[in-house]
Amino acid sequence: MKATVIYGAGDVRVETVPDPKLYEPTDAVVRVLRSCICGSDLWPFGAKPAQDHGDRIGHEFLGVVEDIGAEVTGLKPGDVVVAPFVWADNTCDFCREGLQTSCRHGGQWGSTDVDGGQGEAVRVPQASGTLVKLPVGEDSALLPSLLTLSDVFPTGHHCAVTAGVGPRTTVTVIGDGAVGLSAVLAAKRLGAEQIILMGRHTERTDLGRAFGATDVVAERGEEGVEKVRELTGGDGTHTVLECVGLKPAIETAFGVVRDGGTVSRVGAPQYPDVPADFGVFFRNITLTGGVAPARAYIEELLPDILEGRIEPGRVFDRTVGLDEVPGGYQAMADREALKVLIRP
Amino acid sequence: MKATVIYGAGDVRVETVPDPKLYEPTDAVVRVLRSCICGSDLWPFGAKPAQDHGDRIGHEFLGVVEDIGAEVTGLKPGDVVVAPFVWADNTCDFCREGLQTSCRHGGQWGSTDVDGGQGEAVRVPQASGTLVKLPVGEDSALLPSLLTLSDVFPTGHHCAVTAGVGPRTTVTVIGDGAVGLSAVLAAKRLGAEQIILMGRHTERTDLGRAFGATDVVAERGEEGVEKVRELTGGDGTHTVLECVGLKPAIETAFGVVRDGGTVSRVGAPQYPDVPADFGVFFRNITLTGGVAPARAYIEELLPDILEGRIEPGRVFDRTVGLDEVPGGYQAMADREALKVLIRP
Repeated sequence: MKATVIYGAGDVRVETVPDPKLYEPTDAVVRVLRSCICGSDLWPFGAKPAQDHGDRIGHEFLGVVEDIGAEVTGLKPGDVVVAPFVWADNTCDFCREGLQTSCRHGGQWGSTDVDGGQGEAVRVPQASGTLVKLPVGEDSALLPSLLTLSDVFPTGHHCAVTAGVGPRTTVTVIGDGAVGLSAVLAAKRLGAEQIILMGRHTERTDLGRAFGATDVVAERGEEGVEKVRELTGGDGTHTVLECVGLKPAIETAFGVVRDGGTVSRVGAPQYPDVPADFGVFFRNITLTGGVAPARAYIEELLPDILEGRIEPGRVFDRTVGLDEVPGGYQAMADREALKVLIRP
Repeated sequence: MKATVIYGAGDVRVETVPDPKLYEPTDAVVRVLRSCICGSDLWPFGAKPAQDHGDRIGHEFLGVVEDIGAEVTGLKPGDVVVAPFVWADNTCDFCREGLQTSCRHGGQWGSTDVDGGQGEAVRVPQASGTLVKLPVGEDSALLPSLLTLSDVFPTGHHCAVTAGVGPRTTVTVIGDGAVGLSAVLAAKRLGAEQIILMGRHTERTDLGRAFGATDVVAERGEEGVEKVRELTGGDGTHTVLECVGLKPAIETAFGVVRDGGTVSRVGAPQYPDVPADFGVFFRNITLTGGVAPARAYIEELLPDILEGRIEPGRVFDRTVGLDEVPGGYQAMADREALKVLIRP
């Protein structure tokens, strides 16, 4: 089959790789219907040292079950399923606590003997725990929104949930990328009364407004902090959803959070530490968030997509075939595309 | 009257200062029955640059109302009261949210025209909001434990509450000072099932065991982290209560916290930042805590002291008169005393 591999910064290729097969009785093989490129894929695309062998890449996909091992329950060939962005047994103590990203028997797509999501098919370990069956056909118009359950929408949701967003909460979302926009949608869904989106790409912030942002702040740095404070009577917001991962973004987050408030971060951090001095301490600021256990949230978010109340798939603004994936990476890196959908 | 002033590192004096009086109709004047020295007082005692005028110091006291302004309600001369370690109106939005440390009309003891707690009397701004009446006499044997409601016990409690300690929670407490021991007591009171106290002063960790610690780890650094992990099946604890404020302590906290867990800190931080790299992010670690809004907790904690279920005043292991306060500072700095009670 064909799959995407990365050899280093700027060097993504689509190559023929071995077809996936069952290794363990708990495995399934899934033929991919839709996959996509994640903002976090752009970190290796931007900085990975060159190497002579390619690494498999991609961690968001939905598809059709082709084959299952003898111990797989609850799934059968032909089922349409979505995979969260790590695989997990969904039965260990961490999974029961909703932290499937720390599953005792889980792991990451694209690791040894496990395919990446940006290919024609994937061997899925711990299939019964990992995959969630979707009550739709292979040609459903909902596939883009359902694909967001793999990562980007639950990541925005995780950010909002860990921050404690609810009715009467004021929220600042930092970043108008696909995760930031998903965080806006999640905050709106959780009832937030004011959602300030910090971003400067008008076509993205317009989608943010459609998703529920009540205010948009295009300024950055100190000027951006001032603007958010103006919008909140000088106090900042109860919660700040940091969806970028860069040092200036997390610094802005601490600047716009209200005393006693919470900064949650879901952008993979490209910094080693965060401010924690006496000022932060005296203001009782909480820092939370982390990599999103998407699996924990799929059942909760699914009905709103199936019943059309939310449409998180609107973050996809470009669709490519598998051979066009390298161009898709470049388009996202150049900010010509917000998020690229792949139809293998 | 006499009061404690600090001129710089190692230079604490007891001097005659103006008697406090009512400035505002919302003020009260309180004659101090008991005060004490806080671990945080040791930071200026250790490092304050020398200056030619003294600053008033002390932020923990209980006493008797001597005089009240025209707008003070709920208090009358003769009432025995405890003061939390900042003053606050207890009516603004932050106060209603339980964050009196960020009160819109509050402030700190020892600031301009407000006395410090380590003296014979104190002018109390916002008296109706700040002071809590205690149903005891001036000679009650409970005064030491009631005095801990000013700061040290609610600080331990704040650490445990913000960390999310409850039944079935495992807890590591870092630091066997008075705050750490108070955090042990608070965690026990909240029902924690395992409380590991990290500390190496046997007489203090013995009190920690009496307060509810189930395990004591005397090792520090990497060795200490290993030991806590051994005690928790390799995983670390759900919550970590960091009660020191030094860089090695907060680093240990991140080492002993379980994936998905929470580090809460109440030791005034002597470091500018905390680890927040991809490892912390992938493990979904939350950092919370801060300066404790003691006022928010007094009514909740008071009955357990009055009814003898807890005795947080056991952290006091030395009592001095006002003239002996400088020696009390030195004894705490030299770790000869755990916490010094002052009887003016």
